[in-house]
Amino acid sequence: MKALVYHGPGKKAWEEKPRPKIQDDTDAIVRVVKTTICGTDLHIMKGDVPTVEDGRTLGHEGIGIIDEAGKAVKNFKKGDHVLISCITSCWRCDSCKKGMYSHCEYGGWVLGNKIDGTQAEYVRIPFADTSLYHAPKGVNEDALVMLSDIFPTGFECGVLNGQVKPGDTVAIVGAGPIGLAALLTAKFYSPSEIIVIDIDEQRLKAAKKLGATQTIKSGNGKAVDKVMELTDNRGVDVAIEAVGMPATFEICESIVAPGGHIANIGVFGEPVDLHLEKLWSQNITITTRLVDTVTTPMLLKSVEAGTLHPEQLITHHFRLNDIVKAYDTFSRAKEEKALKVVLENR
Amino acid sequence: MKALVYHGPGKKAWEEKPRPKIQDDTDAIVRVVKTTICGTDLHIMKGDVPTVEDGRTLGHEGIGIIDEAGKAVKNFKKGDHVLISCITSCWRCDSCKKGMYSHCEYGGWVLGNKIDGTQAEYVRIPFADTSLYHAPKGVNEDALVMLSDIFPTGFECGVLNGQVKPGDTVAIVGAGPIGLAALLTAKFYSPSEIIVIDIDEQRLKAAKKLGATQTIKSGNGKAVDKVMELTDNRGVDVAIEAVGMPATFEICESIVAPGGHIANIGVFGEPVDLHLEKLWSQNITITTRLVDTVTTPMLLKSVEAGTLHPEQLITHHFRLNDIVKAYDTFSRAKEEKALKVVLENR
Amino acid sequence: MKALVYHGPGKKAWEEKPRPKIQDDTDAIVRVVKTTICGTDLHIMKGDVPTVEDGRTLGHEGIGIIDEAGKAVKNFKKGDHVLISCITSCWRCDSCKKGMYSHCEYGGWVLGNKIDGTQAEYVRIPFADTSLYHAPKGVNEDALVMLSDIFPTGFECGVLNGQVKPGDTVAIVGAGPIGLAALLTAKFYSPSEIIVIDIDEQRLKAAKKLGATQTIKSGNGKAVDKVMELTDNRGVDVAIEAVGMPATFEICESIVAPGGHIANIGVFGEPVDLHLEKLWSQNITITTRLVDTVTTPMLLKSVEAGTLHPEQLITHHFRLNDIVKAYDTFSRAKEEKALKVVLENR
Amino acid sequence: MKALVYHGPGKKAWEEKPRPKIQDDTDAIVRVVKTTICGTDLHIMKGDVPTVEDGRTLGHEGIGIIDEAGKAVKNFKKGDHVLISCITSCWRCDSCKKGMYSHCEYGGWVLGNKIDGTQAEYVRIPFADTSLYHAPKGVNEDALVMLSDIFPTGFECGVLNGQVKPGDTVAIVGAGPIGLAALLTAKFYSPSEIIVIDIDEQRLKAAKKLGATQTIKSGNGKAVDKVMELTDNRGVDVAIEAVGMPATFEICESIVAPGGHIANIGVFGEPVDLHLEKLWSQNITITTRLVDTVTTPMLLKSVEAGTLHPEQLITHHFRLNDIVKAYDTFSRAKEEKALKVVLENR
Repeated sequence: MKALVYHGPGKKAWEEKPRPKIQDDTDAIVRVVKTTICGTDLHIMKGDVPTVEDGRTLGHEGIGIIDEAGKAVKNFKKGDHVLISCITSCWRCDSCKKGMYSHCEYGGWVLGNKIDGTQAEYVRIPFADTSLYHAPKGVNEDALVMLSDIFPTGFECGVLNGQVKPGDTVAIVGAGPIGLAALLTAKFYSPSEIIVIDIDEQRLKAAKKLGATQTIKSGNGKAVDKVMELTDNRGVDVAIEAVGMPATFEICESIVAPGGHIANIGVFGEPVDLHLEKLWSQNITITTRLVDTVTTPMLLKSVEAGTLHPEQLITHHFRLNDIVKAYDTFSRAKEEKALKVVLENR
Repeated sequence: MKALVYHGPGKKAWEEKPRPKIQDDTDAIVRVVKTTICGTDLHIMKGDVPTVEDGRTLGHEGIGIIDEAGKAVKNFKKGDHVLISCITSCWRCDSCKKGMYSHCEYGGWVLGNKIDGTQAEYVRIPFADTSLYHAPKGVNEDALVMLSDIFPTGFECGVLNGQVKPGDTVAIVGAGPIGLAALLTAKFYSPSEIIVIDIDEQRLKAAKKLGATQTIKSGNGKAVDKVMELTDNRGVDVAIEAVGMPATFEICESIVAPGGHIANIGVFGEPVDLHLEKLWSQNITITTRLVDTVTTPMLLKSVEAGTLHPEQLITHHFRLNDIVKAYDTFSRAKEEKALKVVLENR
Repeated sequence: MKALVYHGPGKKAWEEKPRPKIQDDTDAIVRVVKTTICGTDLHIMKGDVPTVEDGRTLGHEGIGIIDEAGKAVKNFKKGDHVLISCITSCWRCDSCKKGMYSHCEYGGWVLGNKIDGTQAEYVRIPFADTSLYHAPKGVNEDALVMLSDIFPTGFECGVLNGQVKPGDTVAIVGAGPIGLAALLTAKFYSPSEIIVIDIDEQRLKAAKKLGATQTIKSGNGKAVDKVMELTDNRGVDVAIEAVGMPATFEICESIVAPGGHIANIGVFGEPVDLHLEKLWSQNITITTRLVDTVTTPMLLKSVEAGTLHPEQLITHHFRLNDIVKAYDTFSRAKEEKALKVVLENR
Repeated sequence: MKALVYHGPGKKAWEEKPRPKIQDDTDAIVRVVKTTICGTDLHIMKGDVPTVEDGRTLGHEGIGIIDEAGKAVKNFKKGDHVLISCITSCWRCDSCKKGMYSHCEYGGWVLGNKIDGTQAEYVRIPFADTSLYHAPKGVNEDALVMLSDIFPTGFECGVLNGQVKPGDTVAIVGAGPIGLAALLTAKFYSPSEIIVIDIDEQRLKAAKKLGATQTIKSGNGKAVDKVMELTDNRGVDVAIEAVGMPATFEICESIVAPGGHIANIGVFGEPVDLHLEKLWSQNITITTRLVDTVTTPMLLKSVEAGTLHPEQLITHHFRLNDIVKAYDTFSRAKEEKALKVVLENR
C-alpha cells in the first residue's frame, strides 16, 4: 500500500509500505477513506516531536472501513464504516477509567506518533472497541473526519474546560482550525458574545461567517484594549487560547474577568509569565488539556442532529495520492486561505 | 477608644481614636471582644499595600458584641454576639449575587484596608446583615475568631478550589497558619495522604500533629523529588500553594499529577513561570481566589458540631492593650514558634 | 389608581384602590408599564390558593418605571426602567444566601399572593435592590415581561434542573406557556431532539414552530409508546413535566432512560405514584423547584444578545383597562389559541 | 468443586459442581478466598428475582486469587490477589463509557444472578480487566470483601447521590449493613449530624458506635416528629433511604428540608406515594441508582489509608463449608444480632 512517511526533519515521501497486520486480538485494520492534515503534522515535519521516528507513517485523523477485526474486537466487524479517534484508549488503565484517555497508559496519542498513522491506505488501530466509533448513517463524511481530533479538541479543551454558559462573553484567541472548532462548539451553549482575535484578516472573516459576534485583528498591541472596550472594561468570562505562544496566553491573562476562565488549547514550546501579582486575587481558573475524545459520542449525535456542521472548516480537497501537494498547500495556509484540507482515498 | 493605627511603613501605635459612628443605616458598631493579627497586617506594615493610608486602624478579623445597629439592620440587634467576616458583602451587586463577595462592588476586603478595622475597641461594620454572623451558642471564642479570615481562606482557596476528594493525595506547600487551616479543612474530605512542605521544622511538627500524613523539609531543592518518591512518581492530585513565592508555586507545578489541581492561596508580588511547555498536555487546573467567605455558615456549623477545631492554630494570647507586643511576637513567628496570636479586649 | 382585585373564588374586579406607599426603606413603588396573566392567577380565581385573601390585587409579573424609591434603595432611582421579578428576595436570610430565593424567609412568592401585585397601575416592591432588575436598553418590552416568571421558571425548574446537554434527547410534557419557555431555553444547550407532548394540536403546532423536533398528541394512552419508538426504545435523557397532573408525571416516569432526569415544573394538587419498583435501579434523578429567578441576569443578557426571543410566546395584547376581558380570553386559551397575553398601561 | 446452588424458592444446597472454565478470552477464573451473603441473596431465596434459575450458584461478593486468566486479560495473572466487583463491566458499551456500569449492556449485575456466582470454591469473572481490582498489599481481607458491593452501594447510591457536604444534617433510614455502610462513608464528608432511624435497638446501638450523632427508634409513627424536633423544624439536608418500603420512603419525603436530597438505596417491590402536592415547590432532588462500583478505586485507597474500616460491619465468621448455617444465621439477623457474615474458603 501507499503511505505518507516521515524521514526526519523536512523529509517525507508518499511511498510503498507493507499493509499493516493485526498484532493483538484487540486491533482492527481500517481501510482509510478520508484523512486530513493537522497543524501537529507540520510540527512533526519540523522535527519538533522527538517521539516520531524515521519511517513513521504520519496522520492521526480519519474515517474508513473495517478491513479486518482482531478476534477480541466485539463492537466492529469487516465492512463497518468507522470514525478513527486521534486518541487510543485501552479502557483498562486508571486514566481511561477516569475518562482521561489522553493519558492512557497503553495508548493516548500514538497514531502517527509512536505507531504508524492514518495518512495511508490502511491503518492498524489498537484497542479498536474503544478507539473507533460507528459512523452514523447518512452523515457527511467530510463532517466526520473533522471529529477525529479538531472538534473534540476545541470542544473539550476550550469550551468544556472554559465552562461556557448561556449569556457569557467568550474570547477565542487564534482563528485557526482549532480556534474555529472552539467557536462552533461554544455556540452549543448560547453565549452572548464570541470575540475572535487573530492576526489574519482572512481567518477573522471566516470566524465572522461562522458566528463570531466581534473580531479583533491583533499583532499591533491593541487587542487587550479593544476587548476591554467591547466589554465595558469588565473583561471576558472565558478566554480560550488556541495559538500556543506566550504573547497570546498573556492576552488571555489580561482580558479574563474576575471569576473567569482561561482554557488553554495551544501547544507550547516554552514557559509563559503567569501574572500572579495581579491574578492571585482574581478568582480565575486556568486549565490545560490534551484532548481525551470522551465527547466524541456527543459530537456524533450533534452532527447527526444537524446542530453542528464541522465540514464548514474544510477549504480544500485532494486525492490521497496528492498528499504531498496537500501538505504544501496546508503549510502555506495564509496564502492559500486554507483551514482544513481533506484527502480522499479513491 | 483605643486602636492600633498605621502611620506609614514601619510605624504603628496603640492610640486614642474616636469611637466609630453609624454612617449608613445598614452599618453596625461592634465592640471587639477578640481579634488577631494576620500575615497581611505585616505586609501592610512594610508598606506593601498602597490602599492603606496613614491613620488607618488595622485588622480584619474579630468577634464581638453588637453595640449599635443601624436602622436598616434586621438580622442583628444590640447585645448580639457576632463573628466579623474579613470580607464585607453588599449582597446587591453582581459579584455578591454570584457568591463572589471578594469582588463586591461596595465592599470586599475593606476592613483595616480602606476603612478602619478590628484591632480596636470598637469597629464599624458596613452591610452588617450580610457581613456579620451570629456566634453559635457555646462555641469557643478562640475558635470563632479563626473563622473571620484564615479558615474560609484555607478552605475556599485551597481545599474547595483544589476539589479535594476522599482517597486523594494532597500536598500543601507552606505550613503557616493559612496552610494549616487548609490542612484541617482538607480533612473534611478524607484524603488518603496530606503531605505538608515547609522550611521550618517547627511548623512541620505542628502539621504532623494536626494530621499531615507526611512532612517534607524544603529549601534544599529536594522537595519535588521527595514528593515524587512518596507518590510512586505519580505526583499529587491536589497541590495547595500557601506561601506566595515563585519557588513554591513552581514546586506545585512540578508535583501535580495529570488531571490534578493547583490551588493557589498565596499572595504574590511578582509573576511566576508557568511551564506550559510541560503542562499544556497534563489536564491540570490552576485556580486563584481572594476568599469570598461564602463558606462561613458551613464552617460555623462544623465548629459547632465539633468536626473542626480552629483554635488548634492559636499559640499565643495577649490582652488587646498589649497588641504592639503581640505584633512583635507575631513578626518573629519562627523564633517565637508562633502560629496565630489572639488579642482579648477585657 | 386602578387594580385588578380578587374578591373570593370566581370574583374579581378592575376597581379603584389607593396607590401603594413605601412601607419600608428598602421598598420601591413601580408604575406598571406592562403586565401579564399567569396560569397561577386562574388557579387563584378558582380559590385554590388559600394565602390569597379578599381584596388582594393579583399579578406577579411586570415591567415598569420606578416612581419612588425608599431611602435604603441603592440600585434604583425614580425614572429607572425595571423588570419585576415574581420572586421577592431579602438577600439576608439563609435561603437567599444559598441562591434559593423562592424560600426567602421574608419574601419568596408574595406579589399578588400575600401582598398586592402587579395587575394595577402601581405596585409596591419590597427589597427593591434584590427583587428588581434594570431593563437593558433597546430591549423589546414584550420580551422583558416574559422574564418576570415564565422564562426563569421553564429554564430553572425544567432545563437547568434537567441538566440538558448538547446531543441530548429531551421530552417536554405540556406545551403551555411554561412548557414552551422550557423548549426555548432548552435550545440554549443544543440538544439533538426535543419531543413535545400535549393534547392540543394547536399548541403542538406552536411547539414545532418554536423548535420542537418532534411533537406527539397525547390523551390517547399512546404517548409513551411513541416516545419509545422515536428513541429506538432507549427513552429520553431529560423529561420535563410542565402540566402538574399524575398522568403526565407518569408519562415522564415511563420514558426516562437509565441515568436520565425528570425535571418537574408542574404545580400539583395531589400525590403521584412513584414507580420505584421499576425505577429504584434506573439511576434517575427527579427534581422539584419553585422558581428562584437566580438566572434572571443570564436571561436578560440572552435577550439583549438576541439568543432568546421570549416575545414569541405572546399571542394577545390588551390595554390594562381591559384586563377583565384579557382574563376571559386567557381562561379560554384553547379556543382562543392563547399562550401569553400582554396588558399595557397606556 | 463445592458451590451454594439455588434450586427454586426456599431450596438451596452446598453441593458438588464442575469448576468453571474460561469461556471467553477476557474471562478469569478466581479461587474464592472470602465471600459473604447479601440481603439480595435472601430475596433470591424467596423467589423474588426471576432472572435466577434453578441450578445457579449464588453470590456476588468476594475476594480471591486468580487461578487462570484468559488470553486477552492484561491487568491480572495467575496468583494475583483480587477483589471481585459485584458489577461486571465490559467497558465498551455506551453505559460503561458513561461510568454507569450497572447498566452495562454485556454485564451489570450478573454474578449469582444470570451466571454462577461467588459462593463457591471457584468463580468465572467475565471482563476480568474491568471487573476485578488488585487487592492492596497489607489490607485486611475482611475489609476488602465488604468492598464488592455493600460499601460502593452505600457510598454511591446514598452518600454521593445525596451530595453530603461538610456541616450537613444527614438522616439514614435503615441501619442494616447498607445503611451502616452509608453511615461510614457519609463521614468522609464531615457532616455535622448523622441521624440514624431503625426499628431495631440493636442496630441503632451499632449505628451509634459507628458514628451516628443521633438515633431514633421508628415503627411507632413518631420518627418524623423526632427528626423535626432534632433539627429545629428545618428538616435534613440529605435523607438516605436504606430499607426499600413505602413507609420508610415516606419518612424521607417528610423530613427533607427545602433544597435537600432524598437518595434512595432501597430495593422496592411496589410503588410509593410521591407527595408532589407538597414537594413540587420544595426544590428537592430524589435519586435512584443501582450501584455502578465506579468508586471502588477510591474506596480501596481509603481502606489502604486507614480512613475507612469496612470490617467494622462484620459480626460473624464461618468456614465456606458451613455456608448453609451462615444463611440460617443471616436470615435471623435480628435475633442473631448479625450485620455481615464472612465465609472463608480454607
